[in-house]
Amino acid sequence: MIKVGIVGGTGYTGVELLRLLAQHPHVELSAITSRSEAGAPVATMFPSLRGRVGLKFDDPREVELRTCDIVFFATPNGIAMEQAGTLLDAGVRVIDLAADFRIKDPGVWEQWYGMRHASPELIAGAVYGLPEVNREQIKSARLVANPGCYPTAVQLGFLPLVESGLVDTSNLIADAKSGVSGAGRKAEVHTLFAEASDNFKAYGVPGHRHLPEIRQGLSIAAGKSVCLTFVPHLTPMVRGIHATLYARVSRETDFQALYEERYSREPFVDILPFASHPDTRSVRAGNMCRIALHRPQAGDTLVILSVIDNLVKGAAGQAVQNMNIMFGLDECAGLTQIPVLP
Amino acid sequence: MIKVGIVGGTGYTGVELLRLLAQHPHVELSAITSRSEAGAPVATMFPSLRGRVGLKFDDPREVELRTCDIVFFATPNGIAMEQAGTLLDAGVRVIDLAADFRIKDPGVWEQWYGMRHASPELIAGAVYGLPEVNREQIKSARLVANPGCYPTAVQLGFLPLVESGLVDTSNLIADAKSGVSGAGRKAEVHTLFAEASDNFKAYGVPGHRHLPEIRQGLSIAAGKSVCLTFVPHLTPMVRGIHATLYARVSRETDFQALYEERYSREPFVDILPFASHPDTRSVRAGNMCRIALHRPQAGDTLVILSVIDNLVKGAAGQAVQNMNIMFGLDECAGLTQIPVLP
Amino acid sequence: MIKVGIVGGTGYTGVELLRLLAQHPHVELSAITSRSEAGAPVATMFPSLRGRVGLKFDDPREVELRTCDIVFFATPNGIAMEQAGTLLDAGVRVIDLAADFRIKDPGVWEQWYGMRHASPELIAGAVYGLPEVNREQIKSARLVANPGCYPTAVQLGFLPLVESGLVDTSNLIADAKSGVSGAGRKAEVHTLFAEASDNFKAYGVPGHRHLPEIRQGLSIAAGKSVCLTFVPHLTPMVRGIHATLYARVSRETDFQALYEERYSREPFVDILPFASHPDTRSVRAGNMCRIALHRPQAGDTLVILSVIDNLVKGAAGQAVQNMNIMFGLDECAGLTQIPVLP
Amino acid sequence: MIKVGIVGGTGYTGVELLRLLAQHPHVELSAITSRSEAGAPVATMFPSLRGRVGLKFDDPREVELRTCDIVFFATPNGIAMEQAGTLLDAGVRVIDLAADFRIKDPGVWEQWYGMRHASPELIAGAVYGLPEVNREQIKSARLVANPGCYPTAVQLGFLPLVESGLVDTSNLIADAKSGVSGAGRKAEVHTLFAEASDNFKAYGVPGHRHLPEIRQGLSIAAGKSVCLTFVPHLTPMVRGIHATLYARVSRETDFQALYEERYSREPFVDILPFASHPDTRSVRAGNMCRIALHRPQAGDTLVILSVIDNLVKGAAGQAVQNMNIMFGLDECAGLTQIPVLP
Repeated sequence: MIKVGIVGGTGYTGVELLRLLAQHPHVELSAITSRSEAGAPVATMFPSLRGRVGLKFDDPREVELRTCDIVFFATPNGIAMEQAGTLLDAGVRVIDLAADFRIKDPGVWEQWYGMRHASPELIAGAVYGLPEVNREQIKSARLVANPGCYPTAVQLGFLPLVESGLVDTSNLIADAKSGVSGAGRKAEVHTLFAEASDNFKAYGVPGHRHLPEIRQGLSIAAGKSVCLTFVPHLTPMVRGIHATLYARVSRETDFQALYEERYSREPFVDILPFASHPDTRSVRAGNMCRIALHRPQAGDTLVILSVIDNLVKGAAGQAVQNMNIMFGLDECAGLTQIPVLP
Repeated sequence: MIKVGIVGGTGYTGVELLRLLAQHPHVELSAITSRSEAGAPVATMFPSLRGRVGLKFDDPREVELRTCDIVFFATPNGIAMEQAGTLLDAGVRVIDLAADFRIKDPGVWEQWYGMRHASPELIAGAVYGLPEVNREQIKSARLVANPGCYPTAVQLGFLPLVESGLVDTSNLIADAKSGVSGAGRKAEVHTLFAEASDNFKAYGVPGHRHLPEIRQGLSIAAGKSVCLTFVPHLTPMVRGIHATLYARVSRETDFQALYEERYSREPFVDILPFASHPDTRSVRAGNMCRIALHRPQAGDTLVILSVIDNLVKGAAGQAVQNMNIMFGLDECAGLTQIPVLP
Repeated sequence: MIKVGIVGGTGYTGVELLRLLAQHPHVELSAITSRSEAGAPVATMFPSLRGRVGLKFDDPREVELRTCDIVFFATPNGIAMEQAGTLLDAGVRVIDLAADFRIKDPGVWEQWYGMRHASPELIAGAVYGLPEVNREQIKSARLVANPGCYPTAVQLGFLPLVESGLVDTSNLIADAKSGVSGAGRKAEVHTLFAEASDNFKAYGVPGHRHLPEIRQGLSIAAGKSVCLTFVPHLTPMVRGIHATLYARVSRETDFQALYEERYSREPFVDILPFASHPDTRSVRAGNMCRIALHRPQAGDTLVILSVIDNLVKGAAGQAVQNMNIMFGLDECAGLTQIPVLP
Repeated sequence: MIKVGIVGGTGYTGVELLRLLAQHPHVELSAITSRSEAGAPVATMFPSLRGRVGLKFDDPREVELRTCDIVFFATPNGIAMEQAGTLLDAGVRVIDLAADFRIKDPGVWEQWYGMRHASPELIAGAVYGLPEVNREQIKSARLVANPGCYPTAVQLGFLPLVESGLVDTSNLIADAKSGVSGAGRKAEVHTLFAEASDNFKAYGVPGHRHLPEIRQGLSIAAGKSVCLTFVPHLTPMVRGIHATLYARVSRETDFQALYEERYSREPFVDILPFASHPDTRSVRAGNMCRIALHRPQAGDTLVILSVIDNLVKGAAGQAVQNMNIMFGLDECAGLTQIPVLP
């Protein structure tokens, strides 16, 4: 059994990690920390875990995480970069579900995240945990930067196109819609039910923090710098991301076949029949990305629809997938839940 | 492996059965019928099942269900009573998720359901499938009448009180709230999103079909006829039932201890600490009933809060639980999913 | 034109007051204060008011409200009791939309609201602003305590019964369901979209602050102390309260006629045909209370369904109605909006 | 007073017309027809209208609409083209809220709407009722084709750009999101609450009927054929359209000033400050279109955000606006409701 620790388990990625790991056949939940909730049973805060998770929240200053085999950081940005080093030195593997190690250029990171990076020396060794791109490096990674939710949906949707050089990478558009759980479990006015329900809006259009992450990933895949317009929207649903992607064809091929082949051995990417319309609930609570291709009016514009559950394939599920790869387990272990529909 | 057939798999209880049974360790899905969808892959209608359920819908006139070990009827009321007899004669066990065999008195049934009962001779032998009451009879049952969703939440909430004779059974009140999936997957105006969203209303106050079912169960438990006012409400959520129950204390005891003891060996009933407020999402997609007791202002009125997922403990999950009992399996087999929160 | 000031206009009752008053034919919006937003245009915070409300938020320490004809307090509990006295002394009339002057017994108020009352000497002169009960006193009131949302729906539903002495007032039950806007526009975790959406729960069952207010009103109407069990629930909708009320008949009459007569001259109470099911959207954004009576199975229990929009008849609309009465205007002035359906 | 008739008042555009017209200072509601509901009071079907609309539904074969001054068709596609001619011949003015007269080329119409046009001779004389484009023609129109909901939001968002020739009209993208009321009040599975709630999906990507309508309008504005990719999405909210528009700049100007000037005299188009994020609730139940411009990362791609209430500015409200123009009334008469927020 793999001994697992979680730092910061009171948010949505934390409780989702607990849901998945408590059902994982090869995992022993060892400790979960929370400064504010220290001493309280986890199942008191999250009654869905009653009878399934017996842990209490530990005070982060008192618990010894260095005896874990792996530690997940389900913390706000800026925590893992302070604490990962000590754990890594002790031989513990680390997966950060926040953004601290996602951007390779510390200057870019600091510009978008508005703080000084505490461990720039760890960035180079961190592996960006998108298994569909970096599976080999993840196997031997000590530190994995788990991708953001939007970046997962958008990159998986664009990858076959930009890798193959068949579209104009100077003019990619990602119009993405996220459920409100993507904003986390922080008390804020704009994500109150009475603000976000029966309402729809874009946000962060001038520049969202996931933009440089997506641009970095797609540029690596393209072998050159790509230009992306990224517009996220807040959608009145709890879970789910729907990315609607637009690309201009620069060279013809059988795009459906391209996608099917690219992901033919991927357990968590599902290419739907051409011209399908995936809905977010078809992946709700499951670690799946479903993708469909369209070519409206047989024109030059490809439309790619890509859906994930932002808390699973977009966060906790992908983290467990990365853990499975790192420890040589079946990549699907603990991730076989069928999506909940309706 | 138990060979399972499903009659009528295009509704919400059908797809929920598929979700649970496809993950069940001892089940082989053998056939699923639908008149309207015959020939179509199940996963085309329900993309959440892509890659997990390979079946096509069978024409009910062409498939041989008599080779199954058990057949679930996830059909509208009035179908199972026509078809169960033949299957039972062939040695197939049957669980009806509709109401055909729930009411012991055929006259009462015909009055509330507005049709003639086609197999009144089967009613006596049918076991009402509430394991917390009838576990022993279910073990040897050939035909199980799976309880309704409201009846499950309301009976589990009232049972300890009426069994023990500590409350006034001439004046029970059940104010119940259901998610819209309880109305099924039928095209009807009043359950359209634009009708049911951002809206709340009672319905069926003069008399809902679940009233006689609840009254029957509580009267058996009380050993005498009980009087119940039952008011169901349509709630703008997909899944979940919240029953708020009111009873007047006629004799004092430690009610919290009474409930804890009554359900101490029940795997799917969870008594919360006194004066808790269970929310429906704490059981979303899980086969659990969570119950909390209150005694406001230390008066004579007990308030019991009882929550279930109407599609799981209120339908498909309870049906699987009954199957497990009938076949001598671990009662929790295939039902260990942790509720999905948020 | 009546010069109106609003103290504390950044919450939902504040913006709803603005919506109604900006369309009121006899009102001139004079000032609106907010400590935190001083200097900002109101329409920046609430874009729905763009082009319709030109005011900026004033610093409460700098604005002179004593030149207003009337001041509304749309503040948290505990503010109006500090500031109303000065305004009243200056001849300004005051309507408090919070709870400071609703409870006649300062001891009871202090017990439920957990603070010392700053102006107990004003309580006796304050008129409880439920026009259907106190219209005459409101006409000459200097200080009106605007009722709470639950108290409005519950009292209007019970009043004909308790006034007439036809039911057992030792055993009234109010099972009430509120939209999330009732919790206000405060950043709190439990009212986040991802917490409150697709979810249903009771809260405050041991004792909600609206209980003593309802009990006080019904006891006055009954001419004796009534006993009420009050269970509020949080419902995944923005606006609306649905109160489901239960009372035991102690003496027979034509209850439908009783209700129709009691409210025959009330412009904002609508008695539906017997055995109707009012939905909350039928009053959404309108200042109406719709009520329907049921007598299930012709038994001893009456079920009364009462719906309001918590922000209109349950708050801002009722406040405007009170203002109209206080200033001798048409009681419906500015309140003729037809509810928004769907 | 203008005598108004409504054909087909049982859908959402019908009830919305009633809400607006019942509050209109210069309108007398004369008749409303429904084949299925003939004889029933309108307020029984729509309780929000109780006390405000006293009409009953008339049998369309029995009512004489030729005495009306104007008749609105709130019917499915294909009805107005059958009946408008008779009314026009009798001197009645007609506004069709369906699509029968929106497309100038009958061949294109027949291709997209899948039926033969019954009155192609009326098409040429019909005026496309987008007041911001055709105000002068509307003044003298006998027959107005009221624009679709998506076409209103998308055209108003793109118009200043395509009229001025500053963007590449061979590559326009409209990513549009609609509330579920846009699908109408028809009993269909895909718009059931349990299907559409907590879910998000694109639909009609290969070709939606509003595409030729938008393309026609923008091509007229551009003075040449434009190429548009149009992707509509179903959003879990009742009302509202959010159009996210993408255009490539081909010539520089002050785009914010361009928009502000273009719409400076329009009462129902509101240009927000540069880089704002309008939300759909800021126009909920109001006849307003709010638009904001963005230029992410100062690149070549303009992003325009355009929101309307699909039932008001996208249907009934715009129809009333057209009526006001046709009869020489204040264009805002009956349309001054402030949007309902929250």
